[in-house]
Amino acid sequence: MSTPNIAAAKAALSHIEQDENPATIRSKSRDFFWYSPVLKEKMDHLEADFVVNPKSEEEVIEILRVCYAHDVPVTTRGAGTGNYGQAMPMRGGCVMHMKNMASVKEIAPGRVVTEPGIVVKELDAQTRAHSGQELRMMPSTFATATIGGFVAGGSGGIGSCTWGALRDFGNIIRLRVVTMEEEPRVVELTGDELPRVSHAFGTNGIITEIEMPLAPAYDWTELLVAFDDFPDAAKFAEGVANQDGILIKLATVIEAPIGKSYFQRIAPHVEEGTNLVILLVAPHSVEGLKTFMEAEEVPGAIIYDSTDNDWPRTPGALAEYTWNHTTLRALKVDPSITYLQVRYRYPDHMELVEKVRAEFGAEVLQHLEVMRENGKVMFAGLPIVAFSTPERLEEIIRIHEEMGCMIFNPHRYTLEEGGRQSTDARQLNFKREADPKGLLNPGKMIAWDDPDFDYATMYDYPAMTPKPEAAE
Amino acid sequence: MSTPNIAAAKAALSHIEQDENPATIRSKSRDFFWYSPVLKEKMDHLEADFVVNPKSEEEVIEILRVCYAHDVPVTTRGAGTGNYGQAMPMRGGCVMHMKNMASVKEIAPGRVVTEPGIVVKELDAQTRAHSGQELRMMPSTFATATIGGFVAGGSGGIGSCTWGALRDFGNIIRLRVVTMEEEPRVVELTGDELPRVSHAFGTNGIITEIEMPLAPAYDWTELLVAFDDFPDAAKFAEGVANQDGILIKLATVIEAPIGKSYFQRIAPHVEEGTNLVILLVAPHSVEGLKTFMEAEEVPGAIIYDSTDNDWPRTPGALAEYTWNHTTLRALKVDPSITYLQVRYRYPDHMELVEKVRAEFGAEVLQHLEVMRENGKVMFAGLPIVAFSTPERLEEIIRIHEEMGCMIFNPHRYTLEEGGRQSTDARQLNFKREADPKGLLNPGKMIAWDDPDFDYATMYDYPAMTPKPEAAE
Repeated sequence: MSTPNIAAAKAALSHIEQDENPATIRSKSRDFFWYSPVLKEKMDHLEADFVVNPKSEEEVIEILRVCYAHDVPVTTRGAGTGNYGQAMPMRGGCVMHMKNMASVKEIAPGRVVTEPGIVVKELDAQTRAHSGQELRMMPSTFATATIGGFVAGGSGGIGSCTWGALRDFGNIIRLRVVTMEEEPRVVELTGDELPRVSHAFGTNGIITEIEMPLAPAYDWTELLVAFDDFPDAAKFAEGVANQDGILIKLATVIEAPIGKSYFQRIAPHVEEGTNLVILLVAPHSVEGLKTFMEAEEVPGAIIYDSTDNDWPRTPGALAEYTWNHTTLRALKVDPSITYLQVRYRYPDHMELVEKVRAEFGAEVLQHLEVMRENGKVMFAGLPIVAFSTPERLEEIIRIHEEMGCMIFNPHRYTLEEGGRQSTDARQLNFKREADPKGLLNPGKMIAWDDPDFDYATMYDYPAMTPKPEAAE
Repeated sequence: MSTPNIAAAKAALSHIEQDENPATIRSKSRDFFWYSPVLKEKMDHLEADFVVNPKSEEEVIEILRVCYAHDVPVTTRGAGTGNYGQAMPMRGGCVMHMKNMASVKEIAPGRVVTEPGIVVKELDAQTRAHSGQELRMMPSTFATATIGGFVAGGSGGIGSCTWGALRDFGNIIRLRVVTMEEEPRVVELTGDELPRVSHAFGTNGIITEIEMPLAPAYDWTELLVAFDDFPDAAKFAEGVANQDGILIKLATVIEAPIGKSYFQRIAPHVEEGTNLVILLVAPHSVEGLKTFMEAEEVPGAIIYDSTDNDWPRTPGALAEYTWNHTTLRALKVDPSITYLQVRYRYPDHMELVEKVRAEFGAEVLQHLEVMRENGKVMFAGLPIVAFSTPERLEEIIRIHEEMGCMIFNPHRYTLEEGGRQSTDARQLNFKREADPKGLLNPGKMIAWDDPDFDYATMYDYPAMTPKPEAAE
């Protein structure tokens, strides 16, 4: 690994917009890694040497060419709402912020072509205004997250109850990518080439254009349904998602007392023991939903309807109580909690959740997101975990896995550990081609750094900028 | 049952459009009952005494009031594309043809409000032109069938691979219905009231307005995929439907040699042994589909793509080779064949199909339509059956049922026998209220005529107009 010539690279890029304010550089070197007490401990000191804000693909190419020439690592970021530390510059160098590349290039029936730096909410506003369309899925951070960050660092979200995960065939149409070589190339990826760079944290190419499928946009009715009994709530959410004629965008199950403890605007309306289901339902499906609830004698009550309620202060967008926002709201009230990312797979999903609840009780409060996987309704879990020690957290993960749950460990910063703990040959091979010097978001792909890693313990990137105290 | 005063009723309705041409009266007394050799034998002689064509709800009310006063049965029809004899006037009287009530009243995001007599294709054209929307599902007879006939006499169709069946919660929003009483009432039905009159063949009220959910309309790409092996074809169709990110409108599996024998414009392009899968895929999902085929090493080849092919003569709309059109095409080539309507339910659907194939071989050629039921992908079967005798047909049905298939017997004209062979209390109770004299489409609801019927043999409506030879 050659020593980067930071000063030379920064100077050579002086005609491209850079952030010079130290506070800005510090904030643009961070993402939502602090969700994890483990990552917070390990990564809090990381900081870029300089931050560039390209406004075009040409500038991206120039940044990558210059940084390649000077051996400077480049870590690319959107809004930094990822929580696996995916936008953190592990050994400093250049952070490339895509905010200035935010133009929508084309909207057509079922498709949008856009630059990566646009905030999802703004993209949504444009596709809605153009033709009543919206993204199939989006993160709960839609109000600040960029589409590029979602594609490069996300996996699914609001909408996945209908459309599955981002990685499913058809959920990304095309990605245009710049490589980091002596002379960067522009590559168009489609079909089976997409997994090379989607959810690769920008480790093997920089996305400069994205073509995504669109779904019809509706004025989704937001509902809160209260249940005394958690399994009833989970069964209801699953049941709604299995109703083929009822169109939903979101079905979230929140175990008591999360609502009372952490959802401040909802708390006055619920009890300690209230389990909640959050639904986004197409307006033309609301009556079908209510008919389903009556026909099935669902033991829950709609306590909030965004189109008709007497709450003196509304909760705001219910989508912002789901996916990672559930955790965020809990962290704001109680910074000591942490969380996990779990898959409860069909057909054992319901049974697995109950086994986990029986094992951990209040130490692991359930938060389930209804998803589709291989055409079946199942649950993604983002439980809220009472954090005691990293060792206990490891034990909780191990017990989940022994029960048959799959864990995407959000207390790790590598692609492999946050995923399936195995090498993705497509991503690795493309990195060999697109990033021969290994300068793109270094430290995030174990297979590149240490092909023989055995996953026995947390991967510790050897070249990570040492902590100040360790460096003393 | 009082004797109808036909002449008085007809005269009292002389200010409403009537068909006087005997050939027209004959043709408007018939539907696609002749699909079934059993129904053809029993119903071919049926004929209305007169045919009225109301142009408004007011005229419907007047027709029902007058016919009630004169004890005249009223059988309501759209285009007569139903194949359970649902539009056949069992004891003559009045046939009410809804063709003049064909106005679309409102189109909004996700919803359309329409009169019942509009042809589905025309409704589709209007919702597309207005806002790029279409019905969630439609019959293969969309080019001639009316939306009212579909709601009153259909069960699902093209689109059911995504949206399930018409009866599923949310797939009909509202029905406006006129009762047949001394003073007819207008009733608005929503929610759990809808099953009273949907798929009730007009036996307990006349639909005058329909509110249906809409889905986004795309320029669906039509594909024919050829397979040497039938199970491979079935597995492929199921697999595509289980891909959450690939949006389809239709997935049909056609066993060899149906394509070669009965699909005349397709026959030159296939072999005797070619099994076919017909797909309608959203344009923005076609590449995802192809990627799926490569990734899964699907042993089939796309032999026709509506957007890119060199066929000197195209097959026309592939949707018109599916659902009941498959049978129709076979009947045109070989009038001796017949068919069944089968449900192969999840999770045994694939296994059941193979059991049926092993049992019957070429006597029962498989034609599967991918549907969703309770959120799971399964098959509706409309197999083509080599007809020998009614007894053998009964035996074939019995063997299917013994294997665990559910049969909707299309060789019966009653709601119960074509359905679940049991009384639908909702429909019966509403008929008591809405049709106290039992004049609406008589002979189609066994529960009304003969509550103790035991289903041991085919129901034989005692008051059916006798055949001319029997009457001699």
